[in-house]
Amino acid sequence: MIKTAVLGATGYTGVELVRLLVGHPDAKPVFLSSGSSAGKCYSEVHPQFYGKVDLELQQMKVEMIPEEVDLVFTALPHGKSAPVVSELLSAGYKVIDLSADFRLLEKELYCTWYDFNHPDVSLLGKAVYGLPELYSESIKGSGFIANPGCYPTSILLALAPLLKEKVIKSSSIVIDSKSGVSGAGRSPKQAFHFPDCTENFKAYRVAGHQHTAEIEQELGRIAGESLVVTFTPHLIPMIRGILSTIYCEPGEEVNENDLNKVYTSFYKNCPFVRVLEGAKLPETRMVRGTNYCDLALKYDKRTNRIILISAIDNLVKGAAGQAVQNMNIMLGLPEEAGLDQLAL
Amino acid sequence: MIKTAVLGATGYTGVELVRLLVGHPDAKPVFLSSGSSAGKCYSEVHPQFYGKVDLELQQMKVEMIPEEVDLVFTALPHGKSAPVVSELLSAGYKVIDLSADFRLLEKELYCTWYDFNHPDVSLLGKAVYGLPELYSESIKGSGFIANPGCYPTSILLALAPLLKEKVIKSSSIVIDSKSGVSGAGRSPKQAFHFPDCTENFKAYRVAGHQHTAEIEQELGRIAGESLVVTFTPHLIPMIRGILSTIYCEPGEEVNENDLNKVYTSFYKNCPFVRVLEGAKLPETRMVRGTNYCDLALKYDKRTNRIILISAIDNLVKGAAGQAVQNMNIMLGLPEEAGLDQLAL
Amino acid sequence: MIKTAVLGATGYTGVELVRLLVGHPDAKPVFLSSGSSAGKCYSEVHPQFYGKVDLELQQMKVEMIPEEVDLVFTALPHGKSAPVVSELLSAGYKVIDLSADFRLLEKELYCTWYDFNHPDVSLLGKAVYGLPELYSESIKGSGFIANPGCYPTSILLALAPLLKEKVIKSSSIVIDSKSGVSGAGRSPKQAFHFPDCTENFKAYRVAGHQHTAEIEQELGRIAGESLVVTFTPHLIPMIRGILSTIYCEPGEEVNENDLNKVYTSFYKNCPFVRVLEGAKLPETRMVRGTNYCDLALKYDKRTNRIILISAIDNLVKGAAGQAVQNMNIMLGLPEEAGLDQLAL
Amino acid sequence: MIKTAVLGATGYTGVELVRLLVGHPDAKPVFLSSGSSAGKCYSEVHPQFYGKVDLELQQMKVEMIPEEVDLVFTALPHGKSAPVVSELLSAGYKVIDLSADFRLLEKELYCTWYDFNHPDVSLLGKAVYGLPELYSESIKGSGFIANPGCYPTSILLALAPLLKEKVIKSSSIVIDSKSGVSGAGRSPKQAFHFPDCTENFKAYRVAGHQHTAEIEQELGRIAGESLVVTFTPHLIPMIRGILSTIYCEPGEEVNENDLNKVYTSFYKNCPFVRVLEGAKLPETRMVRGTNYCDLALKYDKRTNRIILISAIDNLVKGAAGQAVQNMNIMLGLPEEAGLDQLAL
Repeated sequence: MIKTAVLGATGYTGVELVRLLVGHPDAKPVFLSSGSSAGKCYSEVHPQFYGKVDLELQQMKVEMIPEEVDLVFTALPHGKSAPVVSELLSAGYKVIDLSADFRLLEKELYCTWYDFNHPDVSLLGKAVYGLPELYSESIKGSGFIANPGCYPTSILLALAPLLKEKVIKSSSIVIDSKSGVSGAGRSPKQAFHFPDCTENFKAYRVAGHQHTAEIEQELGRIAGESLVVTFTPHLIPMIRGILSTIYCEPGEEVNENDLNKVYTSFYKNCPFVRVLEGAKLPETRMVRGTNYCDLALKYDKRTNRIILISAIDNLVKGAAGQAVQNMNIMLGLPEEAGLDQLAL
Repeated sequence: MIKTAVLGATGYTGVELVRLLVGHPDAKPVFLSSGSSAGKCYSEVHPQFYGKVDLELQQMKVEMIPEEVDLVFTALPHGKSAPVVSELLSAGYKVIDLSADFRLLEKELYCTWYDFNHPDVSLLGKAVYGLPELYSESIKGSGFIANPGCYPTSILLALAPLLKEKVIKSSSIVIDSKSGVSGAGRSPKQAFHFPDCTENFKAYRVAGHQHTAEIEQELGRIAGESLVVTFTPHLIPMIRGILSTIYCEPGEEVNENDLNKVYTSFYKNCPFVRVLEGAKLPETRMVRGTNYCDLALKYDKRTNRIILISAIDNLVKGAAGQAVQNMNIMLGLPEEAGLDQLAL
Repeated sequence: MIKTAVLGATGYTGVELVRLLVGHPDAKPVFLSSGSSAGKCYSEVHPQFYGKVDLELQQMKVEMIPEEVDLVFTALPHGKSAPVVSELLSAGYKVIDLSADFRLLEKELYCTWYDFNHPDVSLLGKAVYGLPELYSESIKGSGFIANPGCYPTSILLALAPLLKEKVIKSSSIVIDSKSGVSGAGRSPKQAFHFPDCTENFKAYRVAGHQHTAEIEQELGRIAGESLVVTFTPHLIPMIRGILSTIYCEPGEEVNENDLNKVYTSFYKNCPFVRVLEGAKLPETRMVRGTNYCDLALKYDKRTNRIILISAIDNLVKGAAGQAVQNMNIMLGLPEEAGLDQLAL
Repeated sequence: MIKTAVLGATGYTGVELVRLLVGHPDAKPVFLSSGSSAGKCYSEVHPQFYGKVDLELQQMKVEMIPEEVDLVFTALPHGKSAPVVSELLSAGYKVIDLSADFRLLEKELYCTWYDFNHPDVSLLGKAVYGLPELYSESIKGSGFIANPGCYPTSILLALAPLLKEKVIKSSSIVIDSKSGVSGAGRSPKQAFHFPDCTENFKAYRVAGHQHTAEIEQELGRIAGESLVVTFTPHLIPMIRGILSTIYCEPGEEVNENDLNKVYTSFYKNCPFVRVLEGAKLPETRMVRGTNYCDLALKYDKRTNRIILISAIDNLVKGAAGQAVQNMNIMLGLPEEAGLDQLAL
């Protein structure tokens, strides 16, 4: 039984990690930390765990993590994770970091997009980017994973086959993403106050969302050339789910059937990517609470554009589920272990 | 006091028309018809009107409309409206038709996009397309208005200034629209059954939505050249509101400030278009229940794309409110009469 | 044109007051104050007012209110309102206070139920309790109104006829109320954070909600004897609306028809109370955005219990709308002026 | 591995059964039937099962059920289940029936409350009422279970300790229940059409809901005397969850602490009943997707009333989860097998 620690266990991502680890046949949480709720019982803060997870929440100090811990998940805010991870690695722990602090390779990108000076530049590039569908081999041997962002996961899985196969013009990519509110975290804010948030739809951070850097870096890596994309996130009045609608132009003549075969083949060994056939289109409720990414591709002949649609649960495949998938691969467990839930 | 009839008064658009007409200082509904509920009292079908609108619902027969009626609104399903409108016009009524039956100019488009043979081809092109911000002069003199579709309204108002001023490449337009569920009408269907519909987000009719024809026809008219667009509608789990996010490429160098000035100037005499300044972005709740269209324009220098965002209430500016605005203009009433509600 | 001030104009109740006053034919807001947003333009804080209410928000200082103001609405938090109202009255203003600070007659009740020492005990009992359906005569002559709470409004209107007519045992009253989230105010809190609040239902402050004191005081006044009630509030995942389900036992034999006649007769001159007939039951959406209170009475023969159901919009009939109704009556305007909206 | 059949596998209860059986360590579905979708692949109708349950849906004919099936779940509409169950029992199958057709003991009750003549009166009283917290011994030996209704489950578990211990006056019970929309089934209807249903709250079937008969019969059995209750169901704009608020009067002096001890003791061997301590109150989200029933008891000294609050997921503990719990007990599996999900 793998023993894990979750740092930042009371935020939405932390809760989801704990939920998945409790249901995991080969792993369990033994140490949970929380900045705001240290000293309280976990099920006091999140009563749904009553009788199942009654661990006391600890201060977030690396030296307090028991030696028996095999792997540490850091679910801390961007900027706050880096110093902790640095310490954890020095202390010899395997780490899966769910923040953005080790996803980008260049420190300038943190200044530009996240508005902070990265405190440990020497670690940039040391983490494996934990998108198992593309990098499972590197994940296997690694002790340090940068878990992808939620929007990037939904976008990279949709575009990877087309970019790898050089089907599309890399300058033509327009990404229109929509996310449920849990993506904004658990801290109450005016914009997410129920009466202000329900029955409302809006775009935010137009042409300036911080995930753009991660999306471009990783799409560029897949394409083998640097590229820029237009990325617009929106807020949906629902709890969970991201749906990304992506537009791009083929480099030469294509047809929908052939393109769909490319996808089926590309993901044939990926248990969590479902390429939808025929007239089916992804819906977020079909992946709610699951680690699936549902994908569909349409080719609009009239306008010569390819339209990709992907759906994930932002807290599962977009965060905690993908982290558990990475853990499974790192530690030689079955890739699907603890991740076989069906949508509610 | 203008006397109006509303045919199809029990659907969402019909209800919204009645609500607006009841609050209108210079008009009132005197005849309401309903296919399914004829014989019932209006407030029995829609109890919110109890004590305010207790008219008996009539069969939808043109000959039953009282002579005193000055103007007829037809809020009937696409395909069912055409023969009724034809009869109404013959009988000499002024008509504002809220269906799609007279929006398109070419009968082939009805076959291709609506899958029906138009029953009265002679009337195609006879209606004025009722988008007051562009065509108020023609509306003034007209007795027959084709009221624009909800998606087209949100899109045409956003793109008109750029196309008129030839700022953008007409082949570069990608439209990603999102609509509340009332846009799908009042008939219960599995996809709109509450437990299947709430906490869900999806695209539908990708590369095939029937409004594409109207959007292309009308954008083409504004641009002075025929064009095609990629248009993807999505369903938001909320009652009212459309938000359209539109991507396009400038033909030559542009800057955001100048473009915003173009908008402010273009709409300076339009009481229902609000061009948002600075960092503000449209949100559907700011236009909920109102006849406003809120617009914002961003220029993404990095990718050289213009991003337009527009928000309307699909039942008001996207249907009944625009119809009342057209009535006001047709009959020489103040354009804003009966349309001064603020968002709830 | 009546000139009004709204103190606390940026909270939900304040916003609703401003919305109603803007649409009022005989009144308008000329002074708006806000503790948190003083100095900003009103429509900057609440963009739905853009172009309609562009007043600058003022500090909440009584001396800054222009002399021309005819009436002041205080929409301040409980406990903060009392000293301001005291000052306003001294300065000679007519006041409608929407807080709880002048609803209770005995200072001990403020200690017990609101946990604060009332700062101006001399004013207790000086305000008229502003429930127009019961006290319009006193409201007419008054310059100082304590506007009823939202839950109490929904409960008093439902029970008044039965208590007045001595139909029920006053010890038998059980009240199960349910409210939309806007009732909790505009400040973001964990419990009202969208992902924690939507898709959830719960009771709160069981056997201890502060409105109990107001309900008992006012029911007792109607009944002519002191009484206690069991009152349980619940939170509904929606923005607006209160539905109260009330159980009580008749003192002697009754029948449903006769009881309904009592209601129809009791409220025959009350434009905002709608007694539903036959099988109809109140629904919150039928009163959304309106000043109506919808009522139904059922008699369960098997158990010899009367079941009352009432629905109001907590922000309108439960707060701002009732305040405007009180203003209308105080100032001799038509009772319905500015309050003729229909449910959206 | 237990082999099960689910008749009526495409309704919400059927889907939930299939979801739980797929995740069950010792059981699996091998035969699924559907009246409306026979011939289709299960995951075609419910795409969330894609790749997990790709069984073909069968006609609902008893003779088509494979012999290897150990147990049949019938999730059919009330009235349609009885003849099928009759046939299944004759054919020697163990049956857990999720309809109401075998919950009531007297045929007259079906006439009065369900408005149908029971087709197989000889079977009334033959099924064990499958509430495991009260009747696990009888369930163990049984081959025929009537699975309790959703409202009754939430109510019986709340009241059983008080009635068994004769703490309360049996004539004093008032039950105010609130349910999510999935309780109304999967067939689209006007009242559950998203725009009519969201942002709305209402009571329905006041003093006439069919579950009243089941509640009274089973409460009476526990109390050892016949009794009547006032029961009012309400509709909450959310998918899942029932919260029941129950009012009753103690027969003699009581105190809250002692009463809570009665509960803790009564349910000490019941893994799915959580008696909340201290100030905690049940919330439906804490049991969402789980088989838990959360309970709290408050005693209101001022009014001498006991207030009970219970929360369940209507589709799990209120239907499919309880059915699986019954299967586990019947077949000697661990009671919690396949039911260890935590709330999402």
